Amino acid sequence: MRYELYYWPGIQGRGEFVRLALEAGGADYVDVARTSGGERKLMQALGDERQQHPPFAPPFLKAGRVVIAQSANILLYLGPRLGLAPRDEAGRLWCHQLQLTVADIVKEAHDVHHPVGAGLYYEEQKREAKRYAKEFTAERIPKYLGYFERVLERNARGAGHAVGRKLSYVDLSLFQVMAGLRYAFPKTMHAQEHNYPKLSALHDHVTGLPRIAAYLKSKRRQAFNTSGIFRHYPELDRPTTGAKRRAS
Amino acid sequence: MRYELYYWPGIQGRGEFVRLALEAGGADYVDVARTSGGERKLMQALGDERQQHPPFAPPFLKAGRVVIAQSANILLYLGPRLGLAPRDEAGRLWCHQLQLTVADIVKEAHDVHHPVGAGLYYEEQKREAKRYAKEFTAERIPKYLGYFERVLERNARGAGHAVGRKLSYVDLSLFQVMAGLRYAFPKTMHAQEHNYPKLSALHDHVTGLPRIAAYLKSKRRQAFNTSGIFRHYPELDRPTTGAKRRAS
Repeated sequence: MRYELYYWPGIQGRGEFVRLALEAGGADYVDVARTSGGERKLMQALGDERQQHPPFAPPFLKAGRVVIAQSANILLYLGPRLGLAPRDEAGRLWCHQLQLTVADIVKEAHDVHHPVGAGLYYEEQKREAKRYAKEFTAERIPKYLGYFERVLERNARGAGHAVGRKLSYVDLSLFQVMAGLRYAFPKTMHAQEHNYPKLSALHDHVTGLPRIAAYLKSKRRQAFNTSGIFRHYPELDRPTTGAKRRAS
Repeated sequence: MRYELYYWPGIQGRGEFVRLALEAGGADYVDVARTSGGERKLMQALGDERQQHPPFAPPFLKAGRVVIAQSANILLYLGPRLGLAPRDEAGRLWCHQLQLTVADIVKEAHDVHHPVGAGLYYEEQKREAKRYAKEFTAERIPKYLGYFERVLERNARGAGHAVGRKLSYVDLSLFQVMAGLRYAFPKTMHAQEHNYPKLSALHDHVTGLPRIAAYLKSKRRQAFNTSGIFRHYPELDRPTTGAKRRAS
């Protein structure tokens, strides 16, 4: 089976969580929009009125006649097929639950630079972005990464893996979250990262996996940039000592 | 099996998507935090350090020894058990994909009144909320509801259902989205709703299902309010003719 991944070219974005699984699983796949004429194919697929199961947005994966969208859903499908998820139902649900929490922090990492709306440029919402960034760096990063650190701690038999004893797509996604946060918020992460030793070790472990190491060196891995989800704007990376948490 | 639902008392919130499925499926369940002493049980469960699979946040469901969090994930688990999802893999994935897109609009509906951060009160971010609301009502509601309307149109054999020929948890969730948006943004919905005839019909169909009708009349259904996800603040409900869409 040759998988076809459809995602916006030029950024890692949400497609990267799927790419990492395809790469680590040694899958045969094509990153359609990055091939010659591929961007047109992406737009055609998005506008296809005969598609019974239309995606709301990229990424989506074509696997034979099946079309699957929503990155966590794609990983739910790919996980068992690529040996990157447990086979039993409870294990698969736990894996997916963690992935949905990854999706939540990814959405918030996006909203740091787009707090008011995706239809406006960052430059039009810089004031709001600064307020969002203050809470994101002081409260949300510690809340999410502290949670994932606990998950790693409690998986005592897992030897550094998030789920069970083996590599899963959640490990790959946590690598990407750490890499993305380090790129976007280097000062914040420098100030906080000692609190997340198991996440840091997991990041390093994934970096060293032979297939991932080869991928990261290849042209298939695009660099982080300020068009993607994780964006480095120095004015949004000002580590603070945490403000007090309040009910909303 | 008696299911235990754990969610914040006093609001419909994300727990409501699970409640609707439990009610429509005729499940035996207890809404733990709304029982006597239940809020304490919720906090204990959230803080339980022996929990191998800790939830990041409510809602979560206890089903025997399994604990499942993330509302879409809970529905993925409950769907086939309550006869509210297709049994085949492709159908289940499609159902779940739609549910994840529901989760996306629900998150945005929340962010209308909390654009800068969940740790601040609405009153501290009213200026930003107005900008967010403008884009949400003019661009995002049409984008999401237009999408779900197309999904209903393309399911030609479905007689008004989102997935296949039978009621699914996605139908119940779309009912809740319509009800929530009508409560929070009555003027906007009044101005737009003629564009979504199939969604309106689905809302009415779900309202009339005997188990749902009984639920909506019962005390188990809490009213919408300005502590929940869908909140009615008149200043955020100003229908506009859509601004131009731009890249971000």
